[in-house]
Amino acid sequence: MAPVLAGDRRALARLISLIEDNGPTARATLSALYPYTGHAHVIGVTGAPGTGKSTLVNELAKACRTRGQTVGIVAVDPTSPFTGGALLGDRVRMQDLAGDPGIFIRSMATRGSLGGLSLATADVVKVLDAAGFAVVIVETVGVGQAEVDIARTAHTTIVVEAPGLGDDVQALKAGLLEIADLLVVNKADRPGAAQTARALEVTLDLGRNSRLDGQWRPPVLQTVALDGRGVNEVLDAAIAHRAYLQESGLWHRRERERAYSDLMRMLERELVERLVERVGAATLERWTEQIAARESDVYTAAQTILAQTEESDHD
Amino acid sequence: MAPVLAGDRRALARLISLIEDNGPTARATLSALYPYTGHAHVIGVTGAPGTGKSTLVNELAKACRTRGQTVGIVAVDPTSPFTGGALLGDRVRMQDLAGDPGIFIRSMATRGSLGGLSLATADVVKVLDAAGFAVVIVETVGVGQAEVDIARTAHTTIVVEAPGLGDDVQALKAGLLEIADLLVVNKADRPGAAQTARALEVTLDLGRNSRLDGQWRPPVLQTVALDGRGVNEVLDAAIAHRAYLQESGLWHRRERERAYSDLMRMLERELVERLVERVGAATLERWTEQIAARESDVYTAAQTILAQTEESDHD
Repeated sequence: MAPVLAGDRRALARLISLIEDNGPTARATLSALYPYTGHAHVIGVTGAPGTGKSTLVNELAKACRTRGQTVGIVAVDPTSPFTGGALLGDRVRMQDLAGDPGIFIRSMATRGSLGGLSLATADVVKVLDAAGFAVVIVETVGVGQAEVDIARTAHTTIVVEAPGLGDDVQALKAGLLEIADLLVVNKADRPGAAQTARALEVTLDLGRNSRLDGQWRPPVLQTVALDGRGVNEVLDAAIAHRAYLQESGLWHRRERERAYSDLMRMLERELVERLVERVGAATLERWTEQIAARESDVYTAAQTILAQTEESDHD
Repeated sequence: MAPVLAGDRRALARLISLIEDNGPTARATLSALYPYTGHAHVIGVTGAPGTGKSTLVNELAKACRTRGQTVGIVAVDPTSPFTGGALLGDRVRMQDLAGDPGIFIRSMATRGSLGGLSLATADVVKVLDAAGFAVVIVETVGVGQAEVDIARTAHTTIVVEAPGLGDDVQALKAGLLEIADLLVVNKADRPGAAQTARALEVTLDLGRNSRLDGQWRPPVLQTVALDGRGVNEVLDAAIAHRAYLQESGLWHRRERERAYSDLMRMLERELVERLVERVGAATLERWTEQIAARESDVYTAAQTILAQTEESDHD
């Protein structure tokens, strides 16, 4: 554990691989690391495809480094066992950021189980936090449940837009807007950037943002990540958001919400593991067969299985 | 229940709203409906933004109607409470398909809890199946976990591509490819369609498709959904895939897998509800506070809570 806490890169890489493989060793080490967490500013960066998220993350990391802060980057990659590795991110970024000991980059691929990805990502964020990185940036490609899970992991969620995307993409934005603490219109040198920014402001005026549980109104910023324009302002806004969270007490509230949902997920996993062990695979198989044959339904099956377990408790 | 089984539109709409609200009434009705399910061909249609999925779904539904089959459409919409309704789908489609009693269209919005959306979608598919729709099409906008959950709900998953999308979108495809039973290059009248199709074939040659558990190689088809070109061929391929599933025994295997995962999710939900009731909110609060303060960690907390519950069993 000591090498991980000291930020040793090979130890970090090894632990993260363990987490991806969901081994019991990782579980024990994570418990031991947990008291050392809670110091990093976790920033989520998300948005529809084509907005230039990766470049923005790259530039944000460089801006942090200029200010003397260490940065961990977790790029959640919808790549699959099918392609066998990271498609985006690393290769491009490496040229720019590699060699800097103050930066650690990790792509999270799915390795078969997409379901476990958001859990694993949250764990990797904790590892980088415990290892002492001042800022941890989590980048997601894709739009959907993953973004919401990341918003739960991050203190500050940046939603990236770009002018001139199609209708489908516009529609997707609605779901993302509500998790945004900061809105960035990237590729702001393209036609339509000012309109996109205005449209976002209007949507903010109209709607309610689920993060709007205090006095924070997500600022709408414009960047040209390719040449770094506007990136420092985004970082300033993220830092201002962090200060706002701490002063308003929301930082603590989000910590508690995260702790609660982590606890419930752990209990869920443990409960199911114990039940399966107790009831036995054969019984579950039998019920599954009956459900598939429409001789029973999941609700009846679950009730019966649980009633039988409770009965055997009182024998 | 009878009106739902008879396909009464108002009864259907009411039950689906109950499902979205996750009421206990819906749970009981769903159990009662379950024996009547298992007859519909469930087709999932998914793909990156900008590929023209909605138009393709529209045309597929029309092609089914021409062949005399009834069609239920479930459009899973990443819209939020923020915007208050369906952004895509319905409004456009309604003009074309509304008034036909052989078609039932429903948009599923998120209503706050994105997590429950895939569960609710699976339930709505069961309702439409029980109501006698021969084909149920589930459309998702967005890329990520939702797609995988839908692949689990559908017998046949169609992944829609389009020529000339950006790099980000190309990368997203990798994650989708492995859940595809059919690949469709839509907007095939645009430059680059043949190349996109060839690239997909090459990727299929290189990789392994998780659905490739038999002899089925996902065909790569080209459509221009806007004018209906190629749509009949897609429907033919979907029907061929259904026949393949049934002859190979995979249909039954997938039914069993679905039954098993539904059962496990129901058990999970019941177990957690019972535990919370038993342990009490105050105890969970106390642990949450300790975890947030880094005085404990989720693993230790979960183990302790469960050990105490088991002890009190034996008192």
